[in-house]
Amino acid sequence: MTPYQNLSVEELTAQKRELEKRFDEVKAKNLKLDMSRGKPSKAQLDLSMGMMDVLNSESDLVCEEGVDCRNYGVLDGIREAKQLLADMTEVPKDNIVIFGNSSLNVMYDTIARSMTHGVMGSTPWCKLEKVKFLCPVPGYDRHFAITEHFGIEMINIPMTEEGPDMDMVEAYVNSDEAVKGIWCVPKYSNPQGITYSDNTVRRFARLKPAAKDFRIFWDNAYGIHHLYDDKQDHLIEILMECKKEGNPDMVYKFCSTSKISFPGSGVAAIAASSANLADIRKQMKIQTIGHDKLNQLRHARFYKDIHGMVEHMKKHADILRPKFETVLSVMEKELGGLEIGSWIRPRGGYFISFDALEGCAKAIVAKAKEAGVVMTEAGATFPYGKDPKDSNIRIAPSFPTPEELEVATDIFVLSVKLVSIDKILSEKTK
Amino acid sequence: MTPYQNLSVEELTAQKRELEKRFDEVKAKNLKLDMSRGKPSKAQLDLSMGMMDVLNSESDLVCEEGVDCRNYGVLDGIREAKQLLADMTEVPKDNIVIFGNSSLNVMYDTIARSMTHGVMGSTPWCKLEKVKFLCPVPGYDRHFAITEHFGIEMINIPMTEEGPDMDMVEAYVNSDEAVKGIWCVPKYSNPQGITYSDNTVRRFARLKPAAKDFRIFWDNAYGIHHLYDDKQDHLIEILMECKKEGNPDMVYKFCSTSKISFPGSGVAAIAASSANLADIRKQMKIQTIGHDKLNQLRHARFYKDIHGMVEHMKKHADILRPKFETVLSVMEKELGGLEIGSWIRPRGGYFISFDALEGCAKAIVAKAKEAGVVMTEAGATFPYGKDPKDSNIRIAPSFPTPEELEVATDIFVLSVKLVSIDKILSEKTK
Repeated sequence: MTPYQNLSVEELTAQKRELEKRFDEVKAKNLKLDMSRGKPSKAQLDLSMGMMDVLNSESDLVCEEGVDCRNYGVLDGIREAKQLLADMTEVPKDNIVIFGNSSLNVMYDTIARSMTHGVMGSTPWCKLEKVKFLCPVPGYDRHFAITEHFGIEMINIPMTEEGPDMDMVEAYVNSDEAVKGIWCVPKYSNPQGITYSDNTVRRFARLKPAAKDFRIFWDNAYGIHHLYDDKQDHLIEILMECKKEGNPDMVYKFCSTSKISFPGSGVAAIAASSANLADIRKQMKIQTIGHDKLNQLRHARFYKDIHGMVEHMKKHADILRPKFETVLSVMEKELGGLEIGSWIRPRGGYFISFDALEGCAKAIVAKAKEAGVVMTEAGATFPYGKDPKDSNIRIAPSFPTPEELEVATDIFVLSVKLVSIDKILSEKTK
Repeated sequence: MTPYQNLSVEELTAQKRELEKRFDEVKAKNLKLDMSRGKPSKAQLDLSMGMMDVLNSESDLVCEEGVDCRNYGVLDGIREAKQLLADMTEVPKDNIVIFGNSSLNVMYDTIARSMTHGVMGSTPWCKLEKVKFLCPVPGYDRHFAITEHFGIEMINIPMTEEGPDMDMVEAYVNSDEAVKGIWCVPKYSNPQGITYSDNTVRRFARLKPAAKDFRIFWDNAYGIHHLYDDKQDHLIEILMECKKEGNPDMVYKFCSTSKISFPGSGVAAIAASSANLADIRKQMKIQTIGHDKLNQLRHARFYKDIHGMVEHMKKHADILRPKFETVLSVMEKELGGLEIGSWIRPRGGYFISFDALEGCAKAIVAKAKEAGVVMTEAGATFPYGKDPKDSNIRIAPSFPTPEELEVATDIFVLSVKLVSIDKILSEKTK
């Protein structure tokens, strides 16, 4: 395919006319398609229906430590849930605390606690003039929303194919005491699907933060969410790596079963050093008598162990893989060689990230919407919703059916082409 | 019975010897009994076992608004759960927001949010020199732990048989801008089992707070937790009452099904004015994608409606009533007329409150422990764990069996007598 840039004004105009005709045809169909959020599909939810039967009125509801899970007690998680989530996130059982249904809630509470009570005895962040967070971009909008909510200044750190630009991260963290944290989705990142390289993880573990209450917020949301059985990314386990480097307290690791069992009815956890967990429990025992132990038991008994969970994830992969491949093959077929956008082919996670020509993302999302396709709002993958290049678009292929995805991606690439031609034409003719 | 105070030193000494003999006998039995926490008993938990079957792998898991409860979505509660908990707490469905499994967590989050973000636009409390809370005493230790955790100054307000001393409440609230809240358990209060009188509720609704961000924290934990079918307290609904008085935003009402279904696996909620709820949702949507909808659905389908829940509560009452009556009858039989303690006979809730002679509570609790009976720590019912008179002891009769309770209460009254005699003797002989 000839890059659009190399086409003449006449050729581009002709192309545009034809694309507009196709666009009008598809628009007339009044479609309603959604590629905006990383929601599992009905078929994926059906995979866990057995979980609805694993506990019933005949079940023994006493957990390993001998506690009746129907009653009060056990602040930080029953033993079998700790074991399962510890294995899931590759840490020792004693380094994990189980929470409620949402790892986002755990992250929010972690920041809220730091604001009002500091971190392991440090000055509460709300008493400081300025608190800053590093935000690898593109990233997860809900992370950025938390730090924005607390008035924390967010600094963009560009992502590379190996993870965040570590030169920048080191420069900020090691010199600026106001930098208290960094948001990371280290494996199959949201939205690019990038897994941090070994070198990146090691550089994280070797940080020498100016602030002693600096923490890496390591949101391992997609730790076992592979798309392929034979091609899987590997991420170095950060807690152990930090410990080796003499920085055992520098990281909080978050995870949940939201995209393993049921979103909203899963189990979330934090993994951290004993000193961090002691600090967390101090607040936790004021905040609650305990989280839902029956749901913890339900999860532990349904998956049995980490092997059961890994096998379960293969079934998710079988459903997700064709969807990702549909989107990617339409993009490659229709956009390949045109030089009006780039993307990475992820091996796991929930998203595909598309980088359009500068200044085109908003217009593309608007165009797709015209024809009934809802995309994640352009800018959402950046702090304050502001993509400085107006270029990044997040594609979430999990929820629609493969048939819907094919149509939706067709509309998306059509929108990309139309908006890109407009941009190139306006440059060529000005 | 002759009051101990009227006995001679010789008579008291003789009594003491006999009581000590009985105490040693019971101590030799090496009992292990617990009247310390308001935990439902196994028999009560068994009442809700049907809840484990109400959702299974054949169930339609779509809620009234057409959302698949297994997936993300619905921030503030599914419609059927809202209706059930709204009826339970006697407010319109639109005035309720459903949370996770713990109303304590909702209260904690409410204070945490006020600290960092203020209340409906007010200055965040963490930016203020001083924040004060009124604490009716005796009261609930976990309430006081929250305000203590946030460094909020707590002021004791004595309870009367009609609720908190409203002269004091009005004096503080209407004049001191630093007073931002008051902890209330308005029905079958923890620990006294007092229900606020109509007059008390009306005086609450008519408060004219100096601080516009003053809120009544109305923890309606025992709203439908009656012990009797024929003798029930009635509490005026505070939201409507505040609205009538032109103070619609002055109250947050908290509730949960912890002592209706399963503690730790129930559903909690907040009821408040639309303006308050809008403020709450603003934070909630940053904190979580949503709480456990499957558990909301499980509750709604199990109880069907408020009538089902009321009928269910009668079964709880049938189990709890004899326990309360056992404790009360032992106390009346053994302590009646001795003038070494007083108590109220509650019509609902989870506790009996005992007021010993001044300076005796700690010693009584220690004495009972010697013989294997664990009571709530003396002082726990006061802010900072400090009962200025060292007099109040909370008795929780729900968890042990009636047989265990009889033995435990025998040991308790024995401890009361021994400690009281020591006090009276030391006064008489000094």
